[in-house]
Amino acid sequence: MRIDIISGVTALLTGPLNHSIVKRAIDKKLVEIHIHDLRDYTDDKHKKIDDYPYGGDAGMVLTPQPIFSCIEYLTSQRNYDELIFTAADGTVFDQKAANELSLKKNILILCGHYKGVDQRVRDELITREYSIGDFVLSGGELPAMVITDAIIRLLPGAIGDAESALKDSFQDGLLEAPVYTRPAEFRGMEVPEVLRSGDHKKIAEWQKEQAVQRTKERREDLYNRYKKEY
Amino acid sequence: MRIDIISGVTALLTGPLNHSIVKRAIDKKLVEIHIHDLRDYTDDKHKKIDDYPYGGDAGMVLTPQPIFSCIEYLTSQRNYDELIFTAADGTVFDQKAANELSLKKNILILCGHYKGVDQRVRDELITREYSIGDFVLSGGELPAMVITDAIIRLLPGAIGDAESALKDSFQDGLLEAPVYTRPAEFRGMEVPEVLRSGDHKKIAEWQKEQAVQRTKERREDLYNRYKKEY
Repeated sequence: MRIDIISGVTALLTGPLNHSIVKRAIDKKLVEIHIHDLRDYTDDKHKKIDDYPYGGDAGMVLTPQPIFSCIEYLTSQRNYDELIFTAADGTVFDQKAANELSLKKNILILCGHYKGVDQRVRDELITREYSIGDFVLSGGELPAMVITDAIIRLLPGAIGDAESALKDSFQDGLLEAPVYTRPAEFRGMEVPEVLRSGDHKKIAEWQKEQAVQRTKERREDLYNRYKKEY
Repeated sequence: MRIDIISGVTALLTGPLNHSIVKRAIDKKLVEIHIHDLRDYTDDKHKKIDDYPYGGDAGMVLTPQPIFSCIEYLTSQRNYDELIFTAADGTVFDQKAANELSLKKNILILCGHYKGVDQRVRDELITREYSIGDFVLSGGELPAMVITDAIIRLLPGAIGDAESALKDSFQDGLLEAPVYTRPAEFRGMEVPEVLRSGDHKKIAEWQKEQAVQRTKERREDLYNRYKKEY
């Protein structure tokens, strides 16, 4: 799999892409990540990539030319399965989208920044617009890394133990049961006896019960959907 | 404002915290961000901070001791308004939560990692558990940066133009209207005439209409809430 990320502030795209699971997946050649700086594609002699919005609003908007030039160059090199734009007003990114995208070959992610991007870019070039949640961030770089991370950990071989991804929250529509590790007693607080019993059937029952309970308490929306489907 | 972030993989917490709006807010002394490595607080002679989960599941769980030691040290130094844990099974982080947290003085964020954290930490120490969305990530570091970014850009003076934050998506329960910048015509695609008209009343009407339309098309949930409230 190959992921191309286009940004006007590429310095934001470090850390999470160079460590831990993402780095391991790159080292194992499960994924290639290529980062492109919009400033390398601008025709403006001052290297400008943004301008004031029409209509007199505050904030700055990414101009169409550098984005068109960059995306046209990349799409001339290979076919992309999806051209994604990260935007607060996109559709909500979820585990289903991550599962789906993890099966693609080439994905391109354009990071919004400042006030946003000229609408003509979205109309002409973008195939999917994703928001990671109902909050506003200073740019699309964190969402791009979130989407990248969510996809990459699903690639076979990316995380140490495949089973761990399958038992994650959301994969079965429920939140995960509480987890405990050693010591069995810490400052008077004990690990639930059932988890120490070695009785796998009982443990599975307890985990299911806890998962349902936790989902019911914390996420009525997921719980109602779960009840309908099972 | 002061934000402390506790992590087992602090290398992930770079980039987004050292650039752009967050960096500017730090430089302007609007916020202090302090990062703490769990490995500095472990009593284990091999510097281990995780262990196998009880019950025979796959994955690793952060052990209670280093987290208790770190948080106890920090809370002995100052009072924290909230002790936040980033977890896929937390309540959903949204703009309302960001607005609320932006008014606090000291916030502590504990990043989950691997399979999660021993439940006793959550039961005893944590005051709020936030998920940034219905997807699973390799750790809580990206969510911690997302929460930090969403809060910091709300601090007075953090973004260049205060008006820009007020007109964001979600602040009025609607997605934002499309934005356009120069040139007025790009490859035959024109900026809508109304935005170039200079008629501020008309522009505001068009933006409102577009915002309502976009919200209706993309986010039925927000649109229904909007209709009820206005």
